[in-house]
Amino acid sequence: MKVDGIWRQAIWTGGENLRQVFIFDQTKLPHKLVEKELINTDSAIDAICNMEVRGAPLIGVTGAYAVCLAVAATPKNQDPDAWLVNECARIAAARPTAVNLAWAVDKMKNALLGQKDFSNRLSLAYENAKIILEGEVDCCKHIGIHGLELLKDLSSKKGGRPLNILTHCNAGWLACVDYGTATAPIYAAFDEGIPVHVWVDETRPLNQGARLTAWEMLHHGVPHTLITDNAGGHLMQHGLVDAVIVGTDRTTHTGDVCNKIGTYLKALAAFDNNVPFFVALPSSTIDWEIENGLNIPIEQRNPHEITLVQGLCDGQLKSVLVPPEQSPARNDAFDVTPARLVTGLITERGVCRADKKSIAALFPDKSRK
Amino acid sequence: MKVDGIWRQAIWTGGENLRQVFIFDQTKLPHKLVEKELINTDSAIDAICNMEVRGAPLIGVTGAYAVCLAVAATPKNQDPDAWLVNECARIAAARPTAVNLAWAVDKMKNALLGQKDFSNRLSLAYENAKIILEGEVDCCKHIGIHGLELLKDLSSKKGGRPLNILTHCNAGWLACVDYGTATAPIYAAFDEGIPVHVWVDETRPLNQGARLTAWEMLHHGVPHTLITDNAGGHLMQHGLVDAVIVGTDRTTHTGDVCNKIGTYLKALAAFDNNVPFFVALPSSTIDWEIENGLNIPIEQRNPHEITLVQGLCDGQLKSVLVPPEQSPARNDAFDVTPARLVTGLITERGVCRADKKSIAALFPDKSRK
Repeated sequence: MKVDGIWRQAIWTGGENLRQVFIFDQTKLPHKLVEKELINTDSAIDAICNMEVRGAPLIGVTGAYAVCLAVAATPKNQDPDAWLVNECARIAAARPTAVNLAWAVDKMKNALLGQKDFSNRLSLAYENAKIILEGEVDCCKHIGIHGLELLKDLSSKKGGRPLNILTHCNAGWLACVDYGTATAPIYAAFDEGIPVHVWVDETRPLNQGARLTAWEMLHHGVPHTLITDNAGGHLMQHGLVDAVIVGTDRTTHTGDVCNKIGTYLKALAAFDNNVPFFVALPSSTIDWEIENGLNIPIEQRNPHEITLVQGLCDGQLKSVLVPPEQSPARNDAFDVTPARLVTGLITERGVCRADKKSIAALFPDKSRK
Repeated sequence: MKVDGIWRQAIWTGGENLRQVFIFDQTKLPHKLVEKELINTDSAIDAICNMEVRGAPLIGVTGAYAVCLAVAATPKNQDPDAWLVNECARIAAARPTAVNLAWAVDKMKNALLGQKDFSNRLSLAYENAKIILEGEVDCCKHIGIHGLELLKDLSSKKGGRPLNILTHCNAGWLACVDYGTATAPIYAAFDEGIPVHVWVDETRPLNQGARLTAWEMLHHGVPHTLITDNAGGHLMQHGLVDAVIVGTDRTTHTGDVCNKIGTYLKALAAFDNNVPFFVALPSSTIDWEIENGLNIPIEQRNPHEITLVQGLCDGQLKSVLVPPEQSPARNDAFDVTPARLVTGLITERGVCRADKKSIAALFPDKSRK
């Protein structure tokens, strides 16, 4: 999407033969737009570990390009397959919870194993990484196309007034190379001239809404307003929210939605106020095994993410300590919204209800039975 | 309650004849414990305006002592009644939304008007301010006594394991001189040796939970854990919350509860998970006029409270800017929890259901019909 008027993606190649890999260091956003070259495999792994890139789809694509960089660095005196297998394991371990990373790295490995010629292997690596990248972009584009129909319907009831959409966290192009998942329908509507306005939850503790979604909206020109995570219910009570759209880290084939902590509270409020609650996702996010979303293991992250808040102070990025230093904190990263609170899933194949039957009907080739 | 092992209150008198007035500057908490003398009326008004003191009961008591300071400064060449009326108006305007301030200042004015002798007037002023202070403390103490019975009941089902209580914002002794409202039952249970553990919502945007409630708990020795405002629902889904207790800024005589933004979301989650949701309040907080809580006017505060976060950095209190500077923000200070989500009201006279009939039965002398 647009940054300073120019269409950008969250990861791209450049230089000779397009074999240099670049990202935005997202830890510096929104205050500094830092382009960074991933100069080698270690630099790509660090970018994933340190959350310079984040969002499951983007992590997967970065992992694929990390494999390219590993192939490029194959030592002359080593068996290239053994090297590849080792490097792939190292890359896949960078953030083991993101299923897309392991998936992308595996796909790369399987495409390259047995390719003996170095030059062919390297070309094939970049070709496959590009295919993975374009697959993600295409998925998001189609989520946008299907979600747009929903928003057109909702907008038609507004008599020209802006459609107010609330979103939580950042399921935007910064998380997904381009378009985003939750944001894809919003960008599609905006680009079609439908009047939209986005309520951006700040999304504590890491403030991905305040830092990333607000920045995306600002740069693409989409009208938006930042609110605290506490405010959504109140706005819904007063008729100021027409729809909620969020992304998801994992959705069960029964329709339970695991997403950034706090999503469940917004879903409860949407349900209580008859506000439609949509979840936008590529089908790769669907878990075909787990029946009950509450059985999804929830990552507990460092309490410092709660107690220390980063932002701009005197022109520099600094962190401030908010609570008493001795007070303990607990940092559950995700929660689970039961399917009964979800109005619909917006996927790359179309929109379906959040239940086993509807999901299986849309994805008969992927469903386990 | 206790600070560094010594029982303190949020406002107190000292010096010759106990006619100096002191507060803690709460804007500096939790990182610096700054005692501050309110040296004159202006200094008291500033303390209220700048939120060095906050919480409706404490603002009322501070207003009462501000009247004492005004009386002490009565110019020799002025009519003392005219001076008093003017000064009272100035004090009451310091924060017009807090109903307790106007109430306390009016009470002081009515007690003092017509008292011609300066020395008597001054004594009477301090006596009346003390009565107002002690009234607030007594109210909170009784809320604690009644709430304790509820917590004993809940604790008896825990087989000795700690009772997990979630609270939002700071309805603690820092807001109410002593004991607090929502915290009074918690302190009473803790002081009786009942094992309790408090989930402290950080309470964006002003972080009163992270800054003030956590600090109170830490100093009184109550086990507690800081969480984001997003986390309560998830903890309830996993059986980690036994009760929610919050305060309120205004509760209708029909049982709708206006409180810090985000309270409604916690109430929805409590209801969805069969967790009892209690509201602790002095009856002075009950609005005997408004039937529907959604008609309570909601204060919109400065968006900078959302975008700038204050905390400790390199030993100093600093503010960091989190979102892009150009992104607008909206800061609704309160929301309304419908009576249907409230398990019970804990008042100074006892516990009642959050409905018109039960409230009127407990307060027949105050109810309008």
